[in-house]
Amino acid sequence: MAESADRERTAAYDALLERYERYSNLRHVERLLEWDQQVTMPAGGAPARADQFGAVSAAGNDVLAAAETGDLIERIEEAEANGEATLDEDQRAVVREIRREYDRTATVPNDLASDLSAYRTESRGIWEAAKAADDYDAFAPRLDGLVELERERSAAIDPDRDPYEVQYEDSQHYLALDRVEDIFDELREHLVPLIERIRTDGRELPEIPAGTYDEATQDDLCREVLTTLGFDWDRGRLDTAPHPFHASTQFDARVTTRYDESNPLAGLTAAIHEFGHASYQLGLPQDAYGTPLGESRSGIHESQSRFWENHVGRTKPFWELFLPTVTEHFPSLSELTADEAYAAVNRIHPENLIRVEADELTYHMHIILRCEIDSALVRGELDVEDVPEVWNDKMEEYLGVRPETDAEGCLQDIHWSSWLGSFHGYTVGSVLAAQVDAAMRDDLDVDGLIREGEFAPLHDWLGEHVHRHGRRYRTDELIEVATGEPLTAEYFLDYVDEKFTDLYEL
Amino acid sequence: MAESADRERTAAYDALLERYERYSNLRHVERLLEWDQQVTMPAGGAPARADQFGAVSAAGNDVLAAAETGDLIERIEEAEANGEATLDEDQRAVVREIRREYDRTATVPNDLASDLSAYRTESRGIWEAAKAADDYDAFAPRLDGLVELERERSAAIDPDRDPYEVQYEDSQHYLALDRVEDIFDELREHLVPLIERIRTDGRELPEIPAGTYDEATQDDLCREVLTTLGFDWDRGRLDTAPHPFHASTQFDARVTTRYDESNPLAGLTAAIHEFGHASYQLGLPQDAYGTPLGESRSGIHESQSRFWENHVGRTKPFWELFLPTVTEHFPSLSELTADEAYAAVNRIHPENLIRVEADELTYHMHIILRCEIDSALVRGELDVEDVPEVWNDKMEEYLGVRPETDAEGCLQDIHWSSWLGSFHGYTVGSVLAAQVDAAMRDDLDVDGLIREGEFAPLHDWLGEHVHRHGRRYRTDELIEVATGEPLTAEYFLDYVDEKFTDLYEL
Repeated sequence: MAESADRERTAAYDALLERYERYSNLRHVERLLEWDQQVTMPAGGAPARADQFGAVSAAGNDVLAAAETGDLIERIEEAEANGEATLDEDQRAVVREIRREYDRTATVPNDLASDLSAYRTESRGIWEAAKAADDYDAFAPRLDGLVELERERSAAIDPDRDPYEVQYEDSQHYLALDRVEDIFDELREHLVPLIERIRTDGRELPEIPAGTYDEATQDDLCREVLTTLGFDWDRGRLDTAPHPFHASTQFDARVTTRYDESNPLAGLTAAIHEFGHASYQLGLPQDAYGTPLGESRSGIHESQSRFWENHVGRTKPFWELFLPTVTEHFPSLSELTADEAYAAVNRIHPENLIRVEADELTYHMHIILRCEIDSALVRGELDVEDVPEVWNDKMEEYLGVRPETDAEGCLQDIHWSSWLGSFHGYTVGSVLAAQVDAAMRDDLDVDGLIREGEFAPLHDWLGEHVHRHGRRYRTDELIEVATGEPLTAEYFLDYVDEKFTDLYEL
Repeated sequence: MAESADRERTAAYDALLERYERYSNLRHVERLLEWDQQVTMPAGGAPARADQFGAVSAAGNDVLAAAETGDLIERIEEAEANGEATLDEDQRAVVREIRREYDRTATVPNDLASDLSAYRTESRGIWEAAKAADDYDAFAPRLDGLVELERERSAAIDPDRDPYEVQYEDSQHYLALDRVEDIFDELREHLVPLIERIRTDGRELPEIPAGTYDEATQDDLCREVLTTLGFDWDRGRLDTAPHPFHASTQFDARVTTRYDESNPLAGLTAAIHEFGHASYQLGLPQDAYGTPLGESRSGIHESQSRFWENHVGRTKPFWELFLPTVTEHFPSLSELTADEAYAAVNRIHPENLIRVEADELTYHMHIILRCEIDSALVRGELDVEDVPEVWNDKMEEYLGVRPETDAEGCLQDIHWSSWLGSFHGYTVGSVLAAQVDAAMRDDLDVDGLIREGEFAPLHDWLGEHVHRHGRRYRTDELIEVATGEPLTAEYFLDYVDEKFTDLYEL
């Protein structure tokens, strides 16, 4: 009896895994189509590409959201609840993760999903025109409509919960929104006065000398630095794209960056950030490819990119190590000292209005502002028509600067043509990166290793503590497993305090 | 009554088209994954890529072979048969084409399809090892197994017909096998003595001077030639791959070639060939993308590549036009005359044993030999163990040369690890290219246009007569529509007679 129940459970589990594997592969193909579109596709390919995306995405949805998937999950869960069959820890994690994705997909009616998709496509052009014309009123009705559709979607997934929380869980899994909102409050209370002190009392930091830094040389430099950092070129590539991103699995990790000929280091920094994402993917177990144990945790991803970007790439030892490489590529920089390079890549510019151009510190105020406005919109606490004023007031309060146009204010990002509530990850990523960095420093002499160009121990540590687990643990559990404690703002705030107090001689 | 039947028919037709559109897009994505694997994928990506292919392919099959597809087709055909609703010509063509693809896919049991797929994957490694060891016996059982599985598959599709004919229709649609076999007989009778005369009585043709021709310069040359030939770079790319191929839609046409530093023109010729394929795809109607009317006819494709490769790229006017471009890139060739270049690219080498290195004339004997052996195997007229001897006898009979090893003989091609019966298209393509060329010359001064570098009229003619029709016509019908008569060997035989009699001064 028990044996046959176990066979039955095993068959159901295998069938579920096979469905998930197809779904997961189709998702990776979607990501690859995106990479191809940004990197290699001729411009004329766009119309067909949209249809190709649609077909792959629909095929993935069909496999995941099919009634058969739900039946399999239920059979497994029932057998488990009745004690008829027992899953091991990893198998339980697999079922938990597939259940989560199934619930979010299967509960949204097809009509609503395709309405949303069509609405987003249409809104994009309207946003572009509104931004170009600095005409918020032309876009406001689209934002209003999006808020309505997103509320409807949240209600379809779970009518009993805060619709914003439901939406937030699209991108953040297993990391309680109220905890993240508390952390954001702490950050705001701490960072606003710190930024204010830098603005008023900080010394003037050096800048990278003005000049023209040609793209091909920047690309060479980038490749040399990524090689030293340990990028596995047999499983990876580096290309340029209009907006840096990555498209990666544990077998094939593609980093993109963009080069600005007036700034020799921006492209490098972006590449190191994406290299962090790629390294996480490359550290996932190969034998679990196509299962949740071979997938990354979305809430962890940005901590890996920020770790490499900030806790490696913006440190003094990094510049001690790499400045000779940089000046070899750009001899015009040979007067620069490592201290100056370090200071230059860490300059704060609160006067900047644009999120994607923000520095390591002020960036988080751009994020917090967006999360506050997004949540107020979805929760019905803010009218769409009041957004520009609230935006500008917050910019003034947080960064001491007020946009003169909506194009530089609330219309700057494309995101409201497509979604709300997806920005937390950037700031959570930085907070967690600092926490990971602190835990790693308990075990390793990180500064010494960077100075020596020894990056394998850093990869090993991250692989052991974070990457190899895939989605074995919930996000909040994985944070504890990796760092020994729950998510906390403490390490990030210590890190920015120490770094910027020192740099700006406050 | 009639009105509601028509509405019903329209709804069924639209639903069928929507299914086909998904299927068609997934097929294009598969092709793009192939391109990516050959051109951009890091080597380490292979294991995941196999799974991604599998997922996209299964998703396409699921959409096409679903019972719902069959029901829709039947409802439409019944309404049509009852006179309840009337399709226009184009719609009838759409239903005919979807029916053909549906019948071939839905009739093959899933188990057989996956057995075949697994068998092929396994055979590939065994073929590689057998070829490397020149050990036919190690591979023979795999070929035997493939013949069995293919016969089984043919029987599943249509148990009442010649299994080889059923298989042939995988790649050749609506072009009767017996007609093609007659044409092959004509070719054999004509080409074998012509090749023999060239071997014994032909003068010695000049060769391209030996030297090292660097890859980057060959690539520049290729791009310049393709630009003059009218390649639309906004909808296309050129890259290198281990084996030249193309992956194209009417929006995005990707040509690949490979460069050999000892031969400055082989890469160019391959690129022109693939450019011909790409031009066909680019000439398909954009508004029919995702429907059979926006897809190419497989039996026509090779005529378009061969037209550009041979009837443009291997003509005297072509070399009159492009020789200055070639010598500008490779000054060491500046002694060469256009007549010499023309002769050099048209050299026949019957002593060559390898199909993929064969010239324009002897190539067809390699194809005919394969088709004869494949058909005899599938029809049960030849035992697998006798293949090497039959192969070598035919090589001797057709080309006057006998392979000393099976590695250079019947083990040379990878195809028997995967399929049988798919080679006709190459020779049909050349035959049809000559027929198309002759029809075009009734309307245009082709030589004069080539000499002037005016290629737009050639594209326009092909677009008008061939490309714009997609799959509107059956292959045999399209040949008549495009050239005014059924497929015939006449023009091809006249063309090779005239060209090689003149070149070799026979």
